[in-house]
Amino acid sequence: MNPPDLAAIRAAAKRIERYARRTPVFTCESLNLLADAELFFKCENFQKVGAFKFRGACNAVFSLSNEEAKRGVATHSSGNHAAALALAAKLRGIDAHIVMPSNAPEVKRAAVAGYGGKITLCEPTLAAREATIAQIVERTGAVLVHPYNDYRVIAGQGTAALELMQEIPSLDVVMTPVGGGGLLSGTCIAVTGVSPAARIIAAEPQGADDAFRSLKAGKIIPMTDPKTIADGLRSSLGDRTFAIMQKHVHEIITVSEEAIIHAMRQVWERMKIIIEASAAVPVAAVLQRNKNIIGRRVGIILSGGNVDLEKLPWRGPV
Amino acid sequence: MNPPDLAAIRAAAKRIERYARRTPVFTCESLNLLADAELFFKCENFQKVGAFKFRGACNAVFSLSNEEAKRGVATHSSGNHAAALALAAKLRGIDAHIVMPSNAPEVKRAAVAGYGGKITLCEPTLAAREATIAQIVERTGAVLVHPYNDYRVIAGQGTAALELMQEIPSLDVVMTPVGGGGLLSGTCIAVTGVSPAARIIAAEPQGADDAFRSLKAGKIIPMTDPKTIADGLRSSLGDRTFAIMQKHVHEIITVSEEAIIHAMRQVWERMKIIIEASAAVPVAAVLQRNKNIIGRRVGIILSGGNVDLEKLPWRGPV
Repeated sequence: MNPPDLAAIRAAAKRIERYARRTPVFTCESLNLLADAELFFKCENFQKVGAFKFRGACNAVFSLSNEEAKRGVATHSSGNHAAALALAAKLRGIDAHIVMPSNAPEVKRAAVAGYGGKITLCEPTLAAREATIAQIVERTGAVLVHPYNDYRVIAGQGTAALELMQEIPSLDVVMTPVGGGGLLSGTCIAVTGVSPAARIIAAEPQGADDAFRSLKAGKIIPMTDPKTIADGLRSSLGDRTFAIMQKHVHEIITVSEEAIIHAMRQVWERMKIIIEASAAVPVAAVLQRNKNIIGRRVGIILSGGNVDLEKLPWRGPV
Repeated sequence: MNPPDLAAIRAAAKRIERYARRTPVFTCESLNLLADAELFFKCENFQKVGAFKFRGACNAVFSLSNEEAKRGVATHSSGNHAAALALAAKLRGIDAHIVMPSNAPEVKRAAVAGYGGKITLCEPTLAAREATIAQIVERTGAVLVHPYNDYRVIAGQGTAALELMQEIPSLDVVMTPVGGGGLLSGTCIAVTGVSPAARIIAAEPQGADDAFRSLKAGKIIPMTDPKTIADGLRSSLGDRTFAIMQKHVHEIITVSEEAIIHAMRQVWERMKIIIEASAAVPVAAVLQRNKNIIGRRVGIILSGGNVDLEKLPWRGPV
């Protein structure tokens, strides 16, 4: 399978159209003033399952032939991708096998179970996860859908930027956070295809800056000990996402934990919308008033809104 | 001055069009399931200053003749109306004199000052407030703009329901919270004019149920000791708002504090938007599955989104 091109993203957009939400683009005058730029926020926090992840999972599930689909899909993830894959599978009427570590928070298990996902718990080690999922695939023939290192998933994630550019033409900059690189690489392909003059800038926590270092080094440096509140951005890059990023990403801006929490709160207070810490990372970057952002028309993909309301970062633990 | 009719609300809509935000209408499948009804949320939490109050204040300020306007406007309020009046006055380039009690929270003072309001502090008693505002009006000739018992304000508040019905035709029910009755009475006139078959249902905290008791008694029963987290709904009714409500309101549903907090959290978690407790009151009412709501198409005005993020009701104080 080849890396997706713009046509693949357009096909994904058509494929998921009936299932995914076309999320709104919000603006906020007071954040524009603070950033000294014109900001356009693509609100994937309003996407189904509360995150852009539904786009990629949905595209992967609905790309399967009937033969493949019959056997179901599988993944090992405890985050938004697991819930997204479970919902997408439910919509196609097939099984989703989700391997989760036995210490995964109850709320995440409940979300996956709520969408009909078949959960298998395993010891919280990578070896146990991989062994467990291998057994499930062996037994059921289910198709593995990786959270980001998968061309179908990458194409699906690219549909968010595609919609953003349809609604707001002539953006100077498009920004996303970067964790495993699925959203970023999909965005690269959409933006390069539709608005080749636009600058693609990713934002990353300083405490999990493997993408920044990997691009600099010219090879993937795995993330071994991520230290960030942005729990969606703790993964390492995949070879597929990295290859696309190397070709197209203009710049990665890193931000401190303090800046992430500040940006998250600014969005909550000024825009009255709930975003998760990972989504606040590019907002923190624009508030740093980088020279390539000041004065520009900047599209920002707000990646998700799944937050534990009992544990907000601007208060101490209960 | 006569009570506003539909034409007055349409005129208000035109008058404030350049200044107020046309807020979106959101839907939420999972809340529909919980309520067993089809819900349409008019998101006034996204309105300027974070509440519908901007509509009424803006209509009042831009209804003034140049002669009147020159002298400025005045009010004694510490809530959303004060910020709304300050911003509306700023947009017209006139003074807004805001009398606030000396114990008003710093954050509210800062909001009013941020919009350019001229704050006069006074002792935190009604007598001191009234004396202070009388002196200001005497000295400046400023026009008093009451937060709700004012026909210009009522007409402005009615524009939210007007927009809602333009976007979502054939609603069976339109719901608002009720405090002083400004939003409710404006909504009454808009709904009766545009969709006379629709049922107008207000929602009120049990701990501040003066509107419920007033409509039953056929006369205004003042709210003397309100006990509710919904701080926008602690006021007593005005004679103008009450007269309109008596004519048009079909029903008032009262809800417990627990139900308000639960509904507020449901909206935050499922819709990923921030609403204040007052806005959660009609949501709490629909979640009670009242017989006049089940199975219907229900428009709900989410009145505002101004929340102290340090003091969320589902956690104890810091």
